[in-house]
Amino acid sequence: MALCLNANAQQSLWGGAKVTSPEIHPDNTVTFRISAPKAVSVQLTGDFLPNEMIDMGTVKMEKPVAVNLKEGKDGVWEYTTERPLSPELYSYCFTVDGMTMSDPSNIYQIRDVDTWTNFFIIDGKGEDVGHYYSVNKVAHGTVAKVWYDSPTLGMTRRATVYTPAGYEANTKQKYPVLYLCHGAGGDENSWVDLGRASQILDNLIAEGKAKPMIVVIPNGNPTCAAAPGEWEAGLYQASMGGTIPGAAPAKASIPEAFPDLMNYIEQNYRVLKGAANTAMCGLSMGGGHTFQTTMMYPKKFGYIGLFSAAADVTKSAEFDKSMADLFAAKPKLYFIGCGTTDFIINGSKNLVKYFDEHKYPYEVMWTDGGHIWRNWRVYLTHFAQEIFK
Amino acid sequence: MALCLNANAQQSLWGGAKVTSPEIHPDNTVTFRISAPKAVSVQLTGDFLPNEMIDMGTVKMEKPVAVNLKEGKDGVWEYTTERPLSPELYSYCFTVDGMTMSDPSNIYQIRDVDTWTNFFIIDGKGEDVGHYYSVNKVAHGTVAKVWYDSPTLGMTRRATVYTPAGYEANTKQKYPVLYLCHGAGGDENSWVDLGRASQILDNLIAEGKAKPMIVVIPNGNPTCAAAPGEWEAGLYQASMGGTIPGAAPAKASIPEAFPDLMNYIEQNYRVLKGAANTAMCGLSMGGGHTFQTTMMYPKKFGYIGLFSAAADVTKSAEFDKSMADLFAAKPKLYFIGCGTTDFIINGSKNLVKYFDEHKYPYEVMWTDGGHIWRNWRVYLTHFAQEIFK
Repeated sequence: MALCLNANAQQSLWGGAKVTSPEIHPDNTVTFRISAPKAVSVQLTGDFLPNEMIDMGTVKMEKPVAVNLKEGKDGVWEYTTERPLSPELYSYCFTVDGMTMSDPSNIYQIRDVDTWTNFFIIDGKGEDVGHYYSVNKVAHGTVAKVWYDSPTLGMTRRATVYTPAGYEANTKQKYPVLYLCHGAGGDENSWVDLGRASQILDNLIAEGKAKPMIVVIPNGNPTCAAAPGEWEAGLYQASMGGTIPGAAPAKASIPEAFPDLMNYIEQNYRVLKGAANTAMCGLSMGGGHTFQTTMMYPKKFGYIGLFSAAADVTKSAEFDKSMADLFAAKPKLYFIGCGTTDFIINGSKNLVKYFDEHKYPYEVMWTDGGHIWRNWRVYLTHFAQEIFK
Repeated sequence: MALCLNANAQQSLWGGAKVTSPEIHPDNTVTFRISAPKAVSVQLTGDFLPNEMIDMGTVKMEKPVAVNLKEGKDGVWEYTTERPLSPELYSYCFTVDGMTMSDPSNIYQIRDVDTWTNFFIIDGKGEDVGHYYSVNKVAHGTVAKVWYDSPTLGMTRRATVYTPAGYEANTKQKYPVLYLCHGAGGDENSWVDLGRASQILDNLIAEGKAKPMIVVIPNGNPTCAAAPGEWEAGLYQASMGGTIPGAAPAKASIPEAFPDLMNYIEQNYRVLKGAANTAMCGLSMGGGHTFQTTMMYPKKFGYIGLFSAAADVTKSAEFDKSMADLFAAKPKLYFIGCGTTDFIINGSKNLVKYFDEHKYPYEVMWTDGGHIWRNWRVYLTHFAQEIFK
């Protein structure tokens, strides 16, 4: 035990208040509690609470509305949701006298760029996303952090590789590959930690709804070898820019360097090759990487997914030619998903309009909400069922 | 971005104080800062601060001494260590008006049982532990979370497997295996997250100080399939007991189930077999598991390491016989490491005395401090250099 743990452990050893938080009730209302005897005010912020749309100048963003907790006996503050929560993975934090802090009673936290929040899952036990995000009693794939050479970027870089249950035992079976890209400020951990990608794939494959596949999560920051703190740049502060202070310009773009990763995967895993067995999708910046990479190598990908993508139509003959080449290769699926209040929805709308004008086939999914992981998990759950079939 | 992130991001968007913390100065003194304009008092607790020995009845434990931060301008509180810190990985947390919280400026946190603390590393850049705990510009091994069948425990369970750099490319090379066991309240993530095992192995192997080896980190809680939240029991609260509320008794002990894991590893990895190529070590409860497992299968392990082990001499003919059998197999190393103020040091002392009496060869390392990760990382760094040579 670290010494800091002892400091906290003493709370229970010596009679400090132990509370249960969050408590998910049978009707899926949820109670949050925190022991804060000296506090004057305690708030809860969570993505299950109502939002207010705020004007950020050029765009609107969602601002979560904090709710006040009520102080009960022994200095334990409490809040219960007014309504049952629908099945989902939810995030929250407390604010005690103006200080944002995590829930000391809930060990489950995830990092998003530079912020940690607690999370919990409402598992509807049925045909819903909460069920797919839970770890269920099904066969699990292996999640590995691997390092590969990228001569194009001039460094050894890390990727997360999910191999489906049975990969080790079925030594003669080959598998299709999905490349799954993160957004700005994220890294090769994001789709596993925030995106529940291994749970989604385990569950969909176990239910026969998705084909067993290898999922490769690259690092989309071309000046970084891996997630913050996990390569030789040390323990630097993560930022939306996805780089380190004083970093030299990238030697190439992520789409330019993409073949390095694809070569590594095809050389080191039992991979079914060709467009019919290769998919790529990504969120936000990673949607942009998907957009650019699939245009750059139009015959490589049979399935393409843009999730709230940082992508837009360019009015140029070059763009028209690239798109014509891409659709001439007849990808089996071009999926576009975006939240209806997403601040970068215009790119997706422009693409849909452009595809309509050019009679390019695509599938679209508009969902409630903005530029949020909740939507990206929904899109992955959908997209993974549509590919390699 | 989760909505909670937006709440925090607004602090910087709208002029909230951004501070740097921790700031490691060139002389290795460290400044900690937190913006808390409304706070009345702010303390820092860290394992680099002086300790007070407190009497817990039967044992003494170390209690970290909290220091007060001073409030400066703009409500930013600050503390600078009185002395330079020697190379190490250090943990800390803040207490703001009685509420324990992590450092909002430091994204690096690790969980120990039910407590999260921030950490930072003083990297001496030389022949010191800080250097071995850092991610350096060396070839990195793969870290995989794998699932294997344990018929003895009646479940599919998870282990962490480190394969050294080059494992994927050198397809004809076989490697020795180290089984590395965690303590009570820990799981198959602990040696990677708190123990820096992959950094230690990467660095020692790169410098030629340790043989390239496979490292297998089992889950040592026989009623659990994996770490909290990462198997089908859901998001339960972690505890020192390492079990879930209402769990049925384990079907077998960890030593009894050990061959299930060993079989999986030998069937799925390119493994050099036999005692000369097999090592086992562990901390606290995992030291106990190492102690029991190596006695149960005396011819399997050529290298044995007990780190602050929950292990002791039993006065019985059966124990004497087991130990005689173990040493008859002539293990190349029996290592015992313990902190001089560790509350369970007596077990290690009794073993050393017993080994002396029986003229069994062993190696011992007594280090400063108590039952803490700092010692276990030091023991692993040492032990990994002694094995398979």
